[in-house]
Amino acid sequence: MSKENFAIGVDLGGTNTVAGLVSSKGRVLFKEKLKTEAHKGKNSIIHNIERAIQLVIARATEEQIEGLKGIGIGSPGLVDPRTGIVREPPNLKGWKAVPLAKIISRKFKLPAYIGNDANVYALGEHTFGAGKGADSMVCITLGTGMGGGLILNGQLYVGSFFTAGELGHVIIDKAGLKCNCGNIGCVERYVGNSFIIENALNKLKAGKKSIIAEISGGTEHITPITLELAAKKGDKLALEIWKETGEYIGAALSSIINTLGPRLVVVGGGVSKAGPLLLDPIRKEVKKRVFKYLGKRVKIVPGKLGDNAAVLGAASLVWHHL
Amino acid sequence: MSKENFAIGVDLGGTNTVAGLVSSKGRVLFKEKLKTEAHKGKNSIIHNIERAIQLVIARATEEQIEGLKGIGIGSPGLVDPRTGIVREPPNLKGWKAVPLAKIISRKFKLPAYIGNDANVYALGEHTFGAGKGADSMVCITLGTGMGGGLILNGQLYVGSFFTAGELGHVIIDKAGLKCNCGNIGCVERYVGNSFIIENALNKLKAGKKSIIAEISGGTEHITPITLELAAKKGDKLALEIWKETGEYIGAALSSIINTLGPRLVVVGGGVSKAGPLLLDPIRKEVKKRVFKYLGKRVKIVPGKLGDNAAVLGAASLVWHHL
Repeated sequence: MSKENFAIGVDLGGTNTVAGLVSSKGRVLFKEKLKTEAHKGKNSIIHNIERAIQLVIARATEEQIEGLKGIGIGSPGLVDPRTGIVREPPNLKGWKAVPLAKIISRKFKLPAYIGNDANVYALGEHTFGAGKGADSMVCITLGTGMGGGLILNGQLYVGSFFTAGELGHVIIDKAGLKCNCGNIGCVERYVGNSFIIENALNKLKAGKKSIIAEISGGTEHITPITLELAAKKGDKLALEIWKETGEYIGAALSSIINTLGPRLVVVGGGVSKAGPLLLDPIRKEVKKRVFKYLGKRVKIVPGKLGDNAAVLGAASLVWHHL
Repeated sequence: MSKENFAIGVDLGGTNTVAGLVSSKGRVLFKEKLKTEAHKGKNSIIHNIERAIQLVIARATEEQIEGLKGIGIGSPGLVDPRTGIVREPPNLKGWKAVPLAKIISRKFKLPAYIGNDANVYALGEHTFGAGKGADSMVCITLGTGMGGGLILNGQLYVGSFFTAGELGHVIIDKAGLKCNCGNIGCVERYVGNSFIIENALNKLKAGKKSIIAEISGGTEHITPITLELAAKKGDKLALEIWKETGEYIGAALSSIINTLGPRLVVVGGGVSKAGPLLLDPIRKEVKKRVFKYLGKRVKIVPGKLGDNAAVLGAASLVWHHL
């Protein structure tokens, strides 16, 4: 086995920026966390990224520094891996066309790469997690929205304009609910955190019996976690919500699977912690919808990287480019 | 420019088998057509393919024979390019796992390749037609069903199980109409030839005024061609049908475009001859639905290869593998 080497993975989030030292064997040696301070604008964000990287370097041993192959950054938005960040819809307008990889590379005299956070998540699961060795795989990440990443023929696929993998915006009902992106009937509009909660509130308002409100400490405190707890206690309404959520995701995945014919679908992100509550109805719906030939073959599995997924994914950009 | 060389392209259809001699510059020098005689079973079909190829070889000049690089075959169904044909749903059960490429290669002592007909169509448009030079493109073919092919990063993408590109089975309404494949709400169920006609008949039954029946010589003779003629004469009902068909296709394409972020979408197949009647509403619907960033960039164009598309596509398999 070749000698272990290292990369710094940076997870640039709306709230926090986390940088970690990652080994080529997939170990996260340590992490440093700073506030992103997105409201302070572009220069401040870049400064905080640099500080987080500096903190990691300061903590690294001499041997780790010697073996350092580069820096990988996972960022929200549409990311052009060659030059920086382009985002649509632009929540962070100041970011338009910032050549972040170049800035970081020059600053630290190391190769630096950047990718969309959901894409990079897929790369991490492929390099170190549930997707090891898969020729083609589809990743979805469930949270505020539904992100996606595609590994096709062993490579991260970004498309002609670095936008590929916007799987949350696959439609499941052309005349359905209006999505934030402007489209109608996107799956994200049905399975994003706030929409799962909206679904619960609607069912409660309709007078259905449930322990959800009690477990949550009031309907205003319902979260995917309290819905998971309620479901695990056998609450019918909560179980129904997870079943519906899984069916929505399964319907979208069926379109994606018929399109791409992947070996594997990896389901990650916060909401995926609901485990079989969510995965079982996803699998059932997919099996019902996709070509039988594919339904027998494609595997749908939970992500394996857990809380380190973002940093591992970002770091894996470095080895992907070596 | 390198010397022109040649390949034989074979279009294996349910009714006819067409073989043609194709030059590396994309010229079809001549074609030979035989009945496929699918009802007679596997051996008969193989025999007819071989005969069609023999007829082409017999007609070729010595120079063309010398420059012959191989044989490409486009076939319906799920095609494993390494071994032969697997099909689902199995209309041609006898075909299961026939190593057709090997059989043809041994018979003619030439490299032989096989691909799904819609995939091969995409390859042809990429090599010789509307998709020349596109890094990533999506092809759809409209006819009895809606087929698809994906060229990603310059390569035909077939997925982990050689099934990729089943774009007719992208759903547009999770609770919509039942598709032949068993799924609910597939776009093919709305835009396949017979469903376009069904749509027309339903509207006529509802008592809407139209010249469609007259132009078709009776409602039982309505075809996409008579619907096109009626629309071109300004018939409102016919125009509405094309608009709706385009919107259905556009809704499915929006999911595919958000997933893959391609540079180009090529629309081919019989129904695509309706031209702007169909392409304009497709473009409008896509623009309305996909990320604005993509809507400004992705181009949706008609196929360029016309009646030679199948043979050119099949032949292009040979150069794709050289």
